[in-house]
Amino acid sequence: MKCAGDIEVRAVEEESINIDPIQAGGRLTAAAMKALIAYGDGYSVCDNCRKPNRLDYIKKPPIDRFHRELAEFVGMDVARVVPGARRGFQAVADTYVEKGDPVLVTALSHYTEILAIEARGGIPMEIPASPGNIITPDAAAAKIEEVIAKTGRTPPLLFLDHVDYSYGNLHPVREIAKTAHGYDIPVLLNGAYTVGIMPVDGKDLGVDFVVGSGHKSMAAPAPSGVLAVRNERAGEVFRTTAARTDVTSRTFGIKEVEMMGCTLMGATLVGMMASFPEVRERVLRWDSELANTALVVDALKRIGGTAILSQYPRRHTLTRVDTSQSFDRVAEKHKKKGFFFTSALKDRGITGIIPGATRVWKFNCYGLSRAQAEYVAESFIAIARENGLPVS
Amino acid sequence: MKCAGDIEVRAVEEESINIDPIQAGGRLTAAAMKALIAYGDGYSVCDNCRKPNRLDYIKKPPIDRFHRELAEFVGMDVARVVPGARRGFQAVADTYVEKGDPVLVTALSHYTEILAIEARGGIPMEIPASPGNIITPDAAAAKIEEVIAKTGRTPPLLFLDHVDYSYGNLHPVREIAKTAHGYDIPVLLNGAYTVGIMPVDGKDLGVDFVVGSGHKSMAAPAPSGVLAVRNERAGEVFRTTAARTDVTSRTFGIKEVEMMGCTLMGATLVGMMASFPEVRERVLRWDSELANTALVVDALKRIGGTAILSQYPRRHTLTRVDTSQSFDRVAEKHKKKGFFFTSALKDRGITGIIPGATRVWKFNCYGLSRAQAEYVAESFIAIARENGLPVS
Repeated sequence: MKCAGDIEVRAVEEESINIDPIQAGGRLTAAAMKALIAYGDGYSVCDNCRKPNRLDYIKKPPIDRFHRELAEFVGMDVARVVPGARRGFQAVADTYVEKGDPVLVTALSHYTEILAIEARGGIPMEIPASPGNIITPDAAAAKIEEVIAKTGRTPPLLFLDHVDYSYGNLHPVREIAKTAHGYDIPVLLNGAYTVGIMPVDGKDLGVDFVVGSGHKSMAAPAPSGVLAVRNERAGEVFRTTAARTDVTSRTFGIKEVEMMGCTLMGATLVGMMASFPEVRERVLRWDSELANTALVVDALKRIGGTAILSQYPRRHTLTRVDTSQSFDRVAEKHKKKGFFFTSALKDRGITGIIPGATRVWKFNCYGLSRAQAEYVAESFIAIARENGLPVS
Repeated sequence: MKCAGDIEVRAVEEESINIDPIQAGGRLTAAAMKALIAYGDGYSVCDNCRKPNRLDYIKKPPIDRFHRELAEFVGMDVARVVPGARRGFQAVADTYVEKGDPVLVTALSHYTEILAIEARGGIPMEIPASPGNIITPDAAAAKIEEVIAKTGRTPPLLFLDHVDYSYGNLHPVREIAKTAHGYDIPVLLNGAYTVGIMPVDGKDLGVDFVVGSGHKSMAAPAPSGVLAVRNERAGEVFRTTAARTDVTSRTFGIKEVEMMGCTLMGATLVGMMASFPEVRERVLRWDSELANTALVVDALKRIGGTAILSQYPRRHTLTRVDTSQSFDRVAEKHKKKGFFFTSALKDRGITGIIPGATRVWKFNCYGLSRAQAEYVAESFIAIARENGLPVS
């Protein structure tokens, strides 16, 4: 069935249990869906934009209040909405990184942080991961010392993934931030996998900037996200334009340079806003999310030859698994080859794992009900048994 | 009525004739609305993202084909979707502008072009407008000479608004581009008010980059837009990452630096795509849009003391009017003061003019039916008569 022209209706979320690694936290709430229908038109939120003509001053819909609540939600002072977490990285890199600057990232940093640095001519320098794929404050300190010794420059910024995209591991942010601050290096927390999913308090974690993703973890349409900063950084990252044109002497009021003026004018912003009350509540139920994930992970561990590559016990719902000694062994002889596994999952109404994956793959159980999590766990076991794998 | 939490339903487009200057071209088509409902979820278009894992390679929904059609639609070689026209300006400025560079804009340039230049430390230099508020090739040549003489540098870029935001005037792009190319200065066409509204052929106009706005003129949700370039510029603006990390030696495939990887992942992109067939058709009906605008503008001109500040006859639907010698005279004595005018329009079901405006204001009749345009024209006349203004 087409929804428009030759675009097929997307019914993945209606027809399946979707354990896709990146999609779980971005499913819209019912409220966001309703708001989207009301505010789909381009500049829909601008009906009541009055002087000083900036998005975060609009009172109807209550965009101004949303900005304040958003800052509070992540434990920071000032927040702006941005078209995706990556645009938050870009704004901060643009503000602090000069050509040739060494900029700290980690061995588990998301590629968009690297691009934000590369765009400014900075040199990304990775803090290595410790065995178990955790970034430690010791590794951070050693890397900072090494970079300063080698380049003679103190990095202007450290990008740290709260939970990384690769293993879904939770890193010791507070301790790393403290280490970095010992060298006067500000820390940007990439909360794309945490803000909107689990409680995040930037000041408590001691970071300077918190970035979150609307479409990844805040039940919002893409592209959307949040960049929140402490008061002492707001004048830097959210500096207003200083331009005065040479012929007409035009100035541009309080438009912010790194935001390119206004950011999310319609459906994306209202989607974030409409989901926000529910998002604020759902982070408090993080324990039950982890319990669901534990259930699925423990089922996988019962399948002989299967290894959980992520931190264990799980502290996040995104999980990396190695089944090269279990499901991949089956694939070697199965008539569907590597596709037998995702095909068997599909027959059971489970989707979201890359088709054909049987070696190392990721899944995310965020947002499943207990019954759905139990069903996913049972399905992994059943597929293993059907294919002659030992189950303990 | 609330659509979600404390967010009022937006029913402006359902309940009124909306002649807002910036909203007219961004109203969704019915197809886009349907697509939005199907693809509202965050990463909705990523279900079938496979190697090389880039948005414009996705075949289902047909994002890859859409990119090719989009380039063709604006008469260029390569197109990318971006989160708003301003992000297109930013990408091009990031690529070409170095600190201290003089960068050409015009006296009628949109502020987001200035911000894109300011963010890179460039100095915006305005080509003055000629009487009648038109940018001429002679003025461009004189300014280029002046800038080169004064700074000793050739500007790396010229930003030119196809139709400006202030007067809705159509500028002689072809001649200005030819002039700029005589100095080897590439030209970026800001088509925020034209791409998706009227036919635009970048190569025919002789420009190097075409930027359009989804939410302003392509019946798409915000933030969305297009950046299209000629083949010879694609390797520059759409250069892929050259980063290789120092510890893990990670590389990031064909992700494009200025796009920050992928851009519009869900509702915004599918909205653009769903509206596209209709948008492609509607630009061919530009003459009837201009005829509707002529009808309204001619009615305004009949009201004694009213001046059309935009180019006349109108070549675009966005129009700037001076009623300081007509409706503002009424406002001086009216009990509602300046609000009498927009209030009277509101009583007639017409909205979109800044409340209280009676001196210089803008409106945009794009997308009105003939009957609606006639009604708007008659309403202006009726309000004038009711308030004792002479009508010829």
